[in-house]
Amino acid sequence: MKQSNIQFDNTGKLRHFLTIEDLPKQTLIDILDTAENFSTVGTQRAKKVPLLRGKTIVNLFFEASTRTRTTFELAAKRLSADVLNININTSSTSKGESLLDMLRNFEAMHSDMFIVRHNQSGAAHFIAEHVAPHISVINAGDGSHAHPTQGMLDMFTIRRHKKEFHNLRVAIIGDIMHSRVARSQIHALNRLGVPEVRVVGPHTLIPRDANALGVHVFHDLREGLKDVDVIIMLRLQRERMQGAMLPSEAEYFSQYGLTEEKIRIAKPDAIVMHPGPINRGVEIESSVADGPQSVILEQVTNGIAVRMAIMSIALGRKQES
Amino acid sequence: MKQSNIQFDNTGKLRHFLTIEDLPKQTLIDILDTAENFSTVGTQRAKKVPLLRGKTIVNLFFEASTRTRTTFELAAKRLSADVLNININTSSTSKGESLLDMLRNFEAMHSDMFIVRHNQSGAAHFIAEHVAPHISVINAGDGSHAHPTQGMLDMFTIRRHKKEFHNLRVAIIGDIMHSRVARSQIHALNRLGVPEVRVVGPHTLIPRDANALGVHVFHDLREGLKDVDVIIMLRLQRERMQGAMLPSEAEYFSQYGLTEEKIRIAKPDAIVMHPGPINRGVEIESSVADGPQSVILEQVTNGIAVRMAIMSIALGRKQES
Amino acid sequence: MKQSNIQFDNTGKLRHFLTIEDLPKQTLIDILDTAENFSTVGTQRAKKVPLLRGKTIVNLFFEASTRTRTTFELAAKRLSADVLNININTSSTSKGESLLDMLRNFEAMHSDMFIVRHNQSGAAHFIAEHVAPHISVINAGDGSHAHPTQGMLDMFTIRRHKKEFHNLRVAIIGDIMHSRVARSQIHALNRLGVPEVRVVGPHTLIPRDANALGVHVFHDLREGLKDVDVIIMLRLQRERMQGAMLPSEAEYFSQYGLTEEKIRIAKPDAIVMHPGPINRGVEIESSVADGPQSVILEQVTNGIAVRMAIMSIALGRKQES
Repeated sequence: MKQSNIQFDNTGKLRHFLTIEDLPKQTLIDILDTAENFSTVGTQRAKKVPLLRGKTIVNLFFEASTRTRTTFELAAKRLSADVLNININTSSTSKGESLLDMLRNFEAMHSDMFIVRHNQSGAAHFIAEHVAPHISVINAGDGSHAHPTQGMLDMFTIRRHKKEFHNLRVAIIGDIMHSRVARSQIHALNRLGVPEVRVVGPHTLIPRDANALGVHVFHDLREGLKDVDVIIMLRLQRERMQGAMLPSEAEYFSQYGLTEEKIRIAKPDAIVMHPGPINRGVEIESSVADGPQSVILEQVTNGIAVRMAIMSIALGRKQES
Repeated sequence: MKQSNIQFDNTGKLRHFLTIEDLPKQTLIDILDTAENFSTVGTQRAKKVPLLRGKTIVNLFFEASTRTRTTFELAAKRLSADVLNININTSSTSKGESLLDMLRNFEAMHSDMFIVRHNQSGAAHFIAEHVAPHISVINAGDGSHAHPTQGMLDMFTIRRHKKEFHNLRVAIIGDIMHSRVARSQIHALNRLGVPEVRVVGPHTLIPRDANALGVHVFHDLREGLKDVDVIIMLRLQRERMQGAMLPSEAEYFSQYGLTEEKIRIAKPDAIVMHPGPINRGVEIESSVADGPQSVILEQVTNGIAVRMAIMSIALGRKQES
Repeated sequence: MKQSNIQFDNTGKLRHFLTIEDLPKQTLIDILDTAENFSTVGTQRAKKVPLLRGKTIVNLFFEASTRTRTTFELAAKRLSADVLNININTSSTSKGESLLDMLRNFEAMHSDMFIVRHNQSGAAHFIAEHVAPHISVINAGDGSHAHPTQGMLDMFTIRRHKKEFHNLRVAIIGDIMHSRVARSQIHALNRLGVPEVRVVGPHTLIPRDANALGVHVFHDLREGLKDVDVIIMLRLQRERMQGAMLPSEAEYFSQYGLTEEKIRIAKPDAIVMHPGPINRGVEIESSVADGPQSVILEQVTNGIAVRMAIMSIALGRKQES
């Protein structure tokens, strides 16, 4: 594996966090281990560590997402950084300023990190290619390409419950085709050594070249769930319904919705995950989402620790130099 | 009085602050006394105390209110807490997420307090009933039900000027029917032992069961003002004008507007209060709003100290445990 | 020069920063010298000094401007102040509250400073005339009147490159008529002793009384650029295009756009400035904006230090009293 990719600086340290695809296993392990250290901060009386005091972190959100923005903002504040929230719809790009000129401006203000959310695949990568050397870029979701911090918080959650990756069977269920979350999960699971990753969904929502991703494709949920240790449900974007891609919500639920009955097909100690926000009664039965095997809210909690880990690794790099 | 109500935790300490109605007198006195201690923070060179350092306070505003949101944000920052401003119109509820799922998410991020503003009566209470044990809920105004922090800052302002409550005559003037502010004031005045609380307004704006609230009803402003120590004007919502409930603004002002001439009917040292924002020339003459008996801006100042008191009491509870 | 103007308090110290027009040279020098001290903060590991800890600074933006708001917010945060961002369109002025009542409210919350942006000339001055004694007002741009912090960051940038002002020839090019930036620059350049200030633009965009400002008017760019040390390009507001004031963008560029060829008419070491955001290909050729003589991004960097200087001078005044 080449470490000369854009995510590393010229001393081999992680500078940007754009996609899990090009990262070596050890980098992922380092992130998970660092996140373990941060996971206790949320339960301290004062949820604050001074690691990034005086750093300037800019939330550059080209696509609205209160939930994701909030988790990054909280992670940054708990690291004592200063945070700027920039919603690009309302910003000076409406004055016709180019994206690169806008970036140059934030760079010139001595920003340290851009958290980028964009509805176009590759946006965070494009920005990382063009920023000044003192800036780190974190991908907070780009089109249908990647959502790597979500992928890592999922891995953290799995490791907490299953300890090891090398003996797991994991099923990802739903709209694989359009899901940046699924893509990041698959890359992470493969890299961490999970021997069997399955994707489950209707023909219209599984990419034709899915096998090239290193996964096994299932179109029948019952078959796909058989003996798995981890069940990852994806959010069904309601706008997919309006097209010809899907039958009704009811029919989708009957075929691919996770129910108490179907969950018994998996291993008895299987955990149920979902990136949120959940559509109750569409992709998952309420009693399963709230049931004893669900770790959905743990994922949210772990998301803060994992984002603190990634931010502090990328910016700590400079502190040592 | 039962202390087993939802506002107290199982050790009898104040956890939520939803309505004054169910609170014992001593709790109100404790809040006022604590606010006295915080009232000097605003005049210090550095307006900051470290009491809630590392706490996460979330402004959950389902109804826009820059003024109220700002006072809570400032109170939280002066207590050194981290504040997240969430405007729910623009948040992921637009993705169809349920309210409870959204709350679960903020809980999972280790939030400590939700400040809730909602246009439906009972919203803050509903949320308090459903949040995790580590969360405190403060009602920042729910429909026409209650606005208890406003009620307490008004009590603080009255006590500062009148020292005692047991010998006061207080008149509340205007749209009693739709006013959450009036409701919270009446509960607080009654609980603190004010012997005579009057409400003054046209028949269409006084609830039919007003007497059950423990108040005396007046429809004539001159009668209602006679010998009172405290005059509380309410804001007239302009949208009430459009319906059949009210005559013109001019006619309302001639009957219920507070003027320099009418103020002389009250005691010579009566104070004039208003929760803001004021409609000059509608419910109050400008010269009265800005006159020597007006304490309207003191109310704003006191609002910061009172909110700091309530926040620190509710969250300090945990620090001792 | 009378120091009894509104910008100074009664001990002669700078309290408000509204316009450069009425400020003595020594005040400008003091700001530039103080900004020099702050210019290293942006390159420290922790970009933070505790000078304004516990101060409350309110961004009162009646006109949207992400870029300018961000620079003030960052400057305030690096001085450790608490910042409130108030967008007046969405605030309670929509409830019909008067501007002065709104200001009284923010004063009553023990705010220390209002940063005012408004599309009407004179707005910041009006507010400064009416605020309580403990408040400082900074003009962040008012109509076509003044943008004095931009003017000062430009002077800071010029001094850094040219050391002295007394031997300079400066050309300001573009829409002088509608530019608050140009007005502030001209006042600053005159006050700091620049012997020759030129304005260059079409007849329709130069005010008729331009000579009264102490500048030399040119309508031919080549003549205007001859032997100048500093070239300041202005942003061309695209809305000017739609009226009868201007020919096409292409024709404007051919006459007044700064190109690599035209830049050679100026002195070989001339610097090129622009307040941003730039319209590439309209008022400036891309290769010039990004070229070796451009200091456009340094202006952005210097803007943080200059705003920190002005804020700390205006608020430090009180700390000494």
